[in-house]
Amino acid sequence: MFDFAETDNQKLMVKSVKEWCERHLTFEQVREMDDRGHPFPKEIVEGLCGLGVVMGTVPMEHGGSGIDWLTQAMISEVIGYYDPTIATAAGLMAVETGWGFTIDRYCSKTVREKYIKPAIKGEKFAGIATTEAGGGSDVAAFKSTAKKDGDEWVINGEKTFISGTEECEKWGGGYWINVRTGPALPEAPHRNMTSFFLPIDAEGVEVQEPYKDSGRMALSTGGFTMKDVRLPDEYRLGEVGKGFYYTMEGFDNARLMIGASCVGIIQRIIDDAMPYIKERKAFGRPLAKYEAIQFELAELYMEMEALKLMTRKSTWMQDIRYKEEGMPEKTSEAKTFKPTDVANWISMVKWKGPSLAMKAAEKAMIWFGAAGYTKEYIFEYAWRGVMSYVVGAEGGLNIQKIVVARELLGREYIPYK
Amino acid sequence: MFDFAETDNQKLMVKSVKEWCERHLTFEQVREMDDRGHPFPKEIVEGLCGLGVVMGTVPMEHGGSGIDWLTQAMISEVIGYYDPTIATAAGLMAVETGWGFTIDRYCSKTVREKYIKPAIKGEKFAGIATTEAGGGSDVAAFKSTAKKDGDEWVINGEKTFISGTEECEKWGGGYWINVRTGPALPEAPHRNMTSFFLPIDAEGVEVQEPYKDSGRMALSTGGFTMKDVRLPDEYRLGEVGKGFYYTMEGFDNARLMIGASCVGIIQRIIDDAMPYIKERKAFGRPLAKYEAIQFELAELYMEMEALKLMTRKSTWMQDIRYKEEGMPEKTSEAKTFKPTDVANWISMVKWKGPSLAMKAAEKAMIWFGAAGYTKEYIFEYAWRGVMSYVVGAEGGLNIQKIVVARELLGREYIPYK
Amino acid sequence: MFDFAETDNQKLMVKSVKEWCERHLTFEQVREMDDRGHPFPKEIVEGLCGLGVVMGTVPMEHGGSGIDWLTQAMISEVIGYYDPTIATAAGLMAVETGWGFTIDRYCSKTVREKYIKPAIKGEKFAGIATTEAGGGSDVAAFKSTAKKDGDEWVINGEKTFISGTEECEKWGGGYWINVRTGPALPEAPHRNMTSFFLPIDAEGVEVQEPYKDSGRMALSTGGFTMKDVRLPDEYRLGEVGKGFYYTMEGFDNARLMIGASCVGIIQRIIDDAMPYIKERKAFGRPLAKYEAIQFELAELYMEMEALKLMTRKSTWMQDIRYKEEGMPEKTSEAKTFKPTDVANWISMVKWKGPSLAMKAAEKAMIWFGAAGYTKEYIFEYAWRGVMSYVVGAEGGLNIQKIVVARELLGREYIPYK
Amino acid sequence: MFDFAETDNQKLMVKSVKEWCERHLTFEQVREMDDRGHPFPKEIVEGLCGLGVVMGTVPMEHGGSGIDWLTQAMISEVIGYYDPTIATAAGLMAVETGWGFTIDRYCSKTVREKYIKPAIKGEKFAGIATTEAGGGSDVAAFKSTAKKDGDEWVINGEKTFISGTEECEKWGGGYWINVRTGPALPEAPHRNMTSFFLPIDAEGVEVQEPYKDSGRMALSTGGFTMKDVRLPDEYRLGEVGKGFYYTMEGFDNARLMIGASCVGIIQRIIDDAMPYIKERKAFGRPLAKYEAIQFELAELYMEMEALKLMTRKSTWMQDIRYKEEGMPEKTSEAKTFKPTDVANWISMVKWKGPSLAMKAAEKAMIWFGAAGYTKEYIFEYAWRGVMSYVVGAEGGLNIQKIVVARELLGREYIPYK
Repeated sequence: MFDFAETDNQKLMVKSVKEWCERHLTFEQVREMDDRGHPFPKEIVEGLCGLGVVMGTVPMEHGGSGIDWLTQAMISEVIGYYDPTIATAAGLMAVETGWGFTIDRYCSKTVREKYIKPAIKGEKFAGIATTEAGGGSDVAAFKSTAKKDGDEWVINGEKTFISGTEECEKWGGGYWINVRTGPALPEAPHRNMTSFFLPIDAEGVEVQEPYKDSGRMALSTGGFTMKDVRLPDEYRLGEVGKGFYYTMEGFDNARLMIGASCVGIIQRIIDDAMPYIKERKAFGRPLAKYEAIQFELAELYMEMEALKLMTRKSTWMQDIRYKEEGMPEKTSEAKTFKPTDVANWISMVKWKGPSLAMKAAEKAMIWFGAAGYTKEYIFEYAWRGVMSYVVGAEGGLNIQKIVVARELLGREYIPYK
Repeated sequence: MFDFAETDNQKLMVKSVKEWCERHLTFEQVREMDDRGHPFPKEIVEGLCGLGVVMGTVPMEHGGSGIDWLTQAMISEVIGYYDPTIATAAGLMAVETGWGFTIDRYCSKTVREKYIKPAIKGEKFAGIATTEAGGGSDVAAFKSTAKKDGDEWVINGEKTFISGTEECEKWGGGYWINVRTGPALPEAPHRNMTSFFLPIDAEGVEVQEPYKDSGRMALSTGGFTMKDVRLPDEYRLGEVGKGFYYTMEGFDNARLMIGASCVGIIQRIIDDAMPYIKERKAFGRPLAKYEAIQFELAELYMEMEALKLMTRKSTWMQDIRYKEEGMPEKTSEAKTFKPTDVANWISMVKWKGPSLAMKAAEKAMIWFGAAGYTKEYIFEYAWRGVMSYVVGAEGGLNIQKIVVARELLGREYIPYK
Repeated sequence: MFDFAETDNQKLMVKSVKEWCERHLTFEQVREMDDRGHPFPKEIVEGLCGLGVVMGTVPMEHGGSGIDWLTQAMISEVIGYYDPTIATAAGLMAVETGWGFTIDRYCSKTVREKYIKPAIKGEKFAGIATTEAGGGSDVAAFKSTAKKDGDEWVINGEKTFISGTEECEKWGGGYWINVRTGPALPEAPHRNMTSFFLPIDAEGVEVQEPYKDSGRMALSTGGFTMKDVRLPDEYRLGEVGKGFYYTMEGFDNARLMIGASCVGIIQRIIDDAMPYIKERKAFGRPLAKYEAIQFELAELYMEMEALKLMTRKSTWMQDIRYKEEGMPEKTSEAKTFKPTDVANWISMVKWKGPSLAMKAAEKAMIWFGAAGYTKEYIFEYAWRGVMSYVVGAEGGLNIQKIVVARELLGREYIPYK
Repeated sequence: MFDFAETDNQKLMVKSVKEWCERHLTFEQVREMDDRGHPFPKEIVEGLCGLGVVMGTVPMEHGGSGIDWLTQAMISEVIGYYDPTIATAAGLMAVETGWGFTIDRYCSKTVREKYIKPAIKGEKFAGIATTEAGGGSDVAAFKSTAKKDGDEWVINGEKTFISGTEECEKWGGGYWINVRTGPALPEAPHRNMTSFFLPIDAEGVEVQEPYKDSGRMALSTGGFTMKDVRLPDEYRLGEVGKGFYYTMEGFDNARLMIGASCVGIIQRIIDDAMPYIKERKAFGRPLAKYEAIQFELAELYMEMEALKLMTRKSTWMQDIRYKEEGMPEKTSEAKTFKPTDVANWISMVKWKGPSLAMKAAEKAMIWFGAAGYTKEYIFEYAWRGVMSYVVGAEGGLNIQKIVVARELLGREYIPYK
């Protein structure tokens, strides 16, 4: 039965995260971190972790808070609201919660104890390193390999455009990597990929100088090489050869967090813009009375509400999926919604969310005129920050479109096939 | 608690309406009616009424089916799907259900017995006649008047751009009209308007030649003059001087039906377009494999899903509102959502729905090329039909934007004030 | 040296065409023809031909007026202005001028005397019949053939979505057809196509029932079959095997006329809309004072001016090209602009023009509200009429995009290769 | 007679500026200046000035190069191409050329000798300081005043969001200011404004800390206060009370330079993007073969060509205007095009140019994915830089729309009146 009301528990969680943000993620604090660049905000991360909301969906048995995805998305929305610059918390939240949960689902007890539990507490960093020079979404182009040698795997290759390399090095932790454990089949390049958890300090890992980015200062973007890195078999995630499927699951969870945070970002932009355009006059009329401005505002609001409903529905589907699959262990297949059904909805959220949030920031800058171009307001920060989600973080814009079209039309209509 | 599942009862109702449509609203039947123009499809109307879905939200005590708005919207969606041309059923459904329910809520027993109950059965027509030459949404420009004379009201004036004048004359029935029963106050032009139910065959009513329209052939568009029309007081709807507020309520209900039918229209366009673009080849590739086409399709699908969620939420709000207000009699005020909260959401639905549906039809025509321009496919019909909702039926595009902006910014930022 | 001024001669020609249109293409006349459908406006056609402006670019030696393309485009602009419905003159102008000129360039004296000279006078119809069931722009899919038999060619096949089949039958005349005179090479399907002029009354030609179209009532759209049609060799156009290249040239000329007429259509929409939105008030303010309306108007105006400049430059290029190639006989190759350079610009004009004109009509309908949806104003007619240019007449929207991208990126990036 | 060819002289000038830019405005140099922020590129400025192209339209009699506006726009296009970041040359060019020319036209010999001639040589800075806290385009809100005291004027007030305050202080020079020399008439607030040239080192001028901007690092943005600043009458520009009209003329010239530089910026983005998308593969196909990318590229190219034609026509009009008005002294009124005719076209260029350039940069970032977000490519720089033109430099986006609508509809339809 359709219902659009939050539970009391959800309201309570949202309220407590808001209160924390009001104190620790003020505009001044967020701005200062973005201006500085790669702020390594240990205390911010630990604070959030203390609330139990980073990787909050990890089951309690595994050290998480056992929150459902719907509630977790509401929390990401709050984080996006207070950190629209993605200077600090929002980026981490998306990356760590989306991927961390999925690592936890497939990792051994060893990896969980040594890396995931500390990451849940904010003591270590756990990220994803899938992209290679050949492309981000195109797994067929991946060249890194793992070869079994006794009880160990020997890993070689290179990863690039990886979020958080500096942070990972500094705080400790590691990455989910995907490497080939068999030949790349031209017809099925996504097979024969296996996932591992790679400690950043493993011997043979060399971290490179990070890129200089336009924004999203929460996390550096860099790469690393792996030269004869030896990992025990218990660093493997899930089954041999199934890395691609786990990765898709991780992408979905991370994309959901991004989509949800965009709802908050847009709400923040609207909330920050409204008082100014109501008060500021041009030619004797408040800016807000000009249709060119108020209709743009109204459209952003309308589309934000649409996006919010989409995040609610996607997470509701994801919650049903995980419930049916079993938690913490996966014991059966989801029936009500196939994973691709959920992926389709999540791609819609990742498509619409960042594009809309960037447009919102851009519009607010234009409404504010020259003032909107300065660093006196949040808009310039949000504009640069959210662009990272549009161009590629957790899958670029066109990839989402391909997913949605594929689910609608069928795999045989994928444009590059 | 958020929930996005239909109840068994809703599924059942949708199914039975679909089955009826499969037999009575085939493409050939719908097309034939549109080609003919103003088809007066008595048997279609009576068939739908037999299912209990025209004015289905009228309480059982008053002869309706007592369906909630959420379910009624699902049914409108089905009707829109089978009649995207709005040649026949969809237009009637929107007008009669939205307005009929609201008339029923405020009318006397006499009007209900003589007009509303027959209209629910499809034996008479019940519509809305509010627009005057000065404008559709601008009530301050209305000039028609009613003057009390003993126990009767004497009504003079003219109404234009009224849906269904030919149908009303032919089938019998009448219109909800709004007329001035006191002076137009410059500061509050919406006061001193009173609503009546005007039988089309009342003495002094003269119906004019209808306009020639681009589409929406279900209902003629015309006008009528009222010259010293005498109506007993029991033809009054609600209280003297409150006609404006009742009208806004009627608009909301009619807009909801339109928005919901647009979801169905878009789904139909997608469903009709997909097999063709999958099969039809250009330069050796199916049209569906061209990104220019598949990404447009995917975007329409995504936005349709967003729109559908918005209709679900709006009707859920409207249901809560009516429950709190009391039914069939209004006994208290809604608390959870104020009427303006609901109006805001409904305006978003009426803004996004018709615009998106028109775009969908236009895109499908372009994908199909010269074939899409012919009357061999539903698209050309839907394109013209749905444009009636964009330009003005139940409030034009910019009116919806003004409503949304007004609720966001406050009344003092209405652009024309 | 850049110059944007019309010559006195151009002003004079434009003036005389305008004067003729003011008398023969009034709104009432144009509307009546569109309402009737396929009006066969012999007197309109002969009137225009009497001014020397249909196929005005045909050299004087061949019975034309020897106008340059720049001036011819200005004239098409005027025709589009007075016939935005494309009910009558505008469609014919585009088809006959664009293609007629090109037929004349490659035809034998016999064809010229029997068909082209009469067509220039409005006594016969000369069109293009290239599309086959497999696709409009995809020549590789064409299956019609011509086989040499002595001095004659025996032609078999079928053409569809052909403009003017009813008119051609009624008035006499014929079509430029393209047929295979050799095998379809997978790597070069555009080779081995040869062009002929096919009299519509040739034995073996059977004209089919035309389609019912949404608009563009000037010309019916239909098809014909060719069964063992025998044509003397002098009905061949140009060299054997080069039909594809001539067709591209014809497309370019026809697209130019369409682009130019769209400038006029948009200007007409603006001119018809302005007085109404200035006078009509909503909530006490003229519609024109609402930014939502005036900014849309201003944008249409701006883009129309951009489009006009593009038609000027394209025709200026085409004039240089033809001058360098030699006229009436082609004696050398163009140097300043290669044919593909011109084609690129013309595709931009055909891309931007119809899309913009349709948007203009749609916007005007929305500004006018319910009135804009009636047949009281030109907008509804223009909206349907110009859609024919968007969906496919002389190449659909996406084909133009492919051409522009191809010239920019190179042939190896054509998406379907 | 329409002509779209450059003269040999224009080609020569463009070539020489290009050659200079190839050496002095490489990507590395430009990027380094933007990264540094407010680079004070004295040598860049002097180099450009050495070519005679900064304020190149100033008549030779006054120390300029006497270039026409059409040629000057071609040069601005080149500068925009090499400095799309507006880190260095492009911003200066627009501000100094547009405004400097206009100052020169109305200033006394003293001001010309002391400020304009040195500025033409790159030895001093000459800018515009019109904006006040009350708004940029809304002159009615301006509060600064000048009072005549003997042969001197005593000036008080404050200017804000002024381009180049740091540069002006550092290099010497001054600003064109507008101040009230009579009361602000509610019905005609633009009257009683008088223009002066204010040396930045005049006693009583205090320059404030500049804003931190998102980009456009060529010029700082700041403000200054004027406290009892005394200026001799020869620092007055033109006639008393006519400052508003001169300012509009200056705006037009500056906007033209901006529009022209945007053509170059877009061309640069296209040129930089093409090799990458041709080479870079995703899923085995070059990015350029994906329609989603190539159609966006093609559209940018098309609109850039449209914009280029618009800059050509606008400057051609401006050249005719100035020729008719007389140079260096204004001796009569322009007849062929009224100043408002030219202003209309220039506003179209300023509307379309920056919006399109920003969209081009944004699109390229998205095509490049995560790489496009880094500072390895020009796009991120251009994206931030050109936004300064959208939000407000020389008049924000909506102001341009108001101008275009005003010229089309008439002054009585200005939305704020």
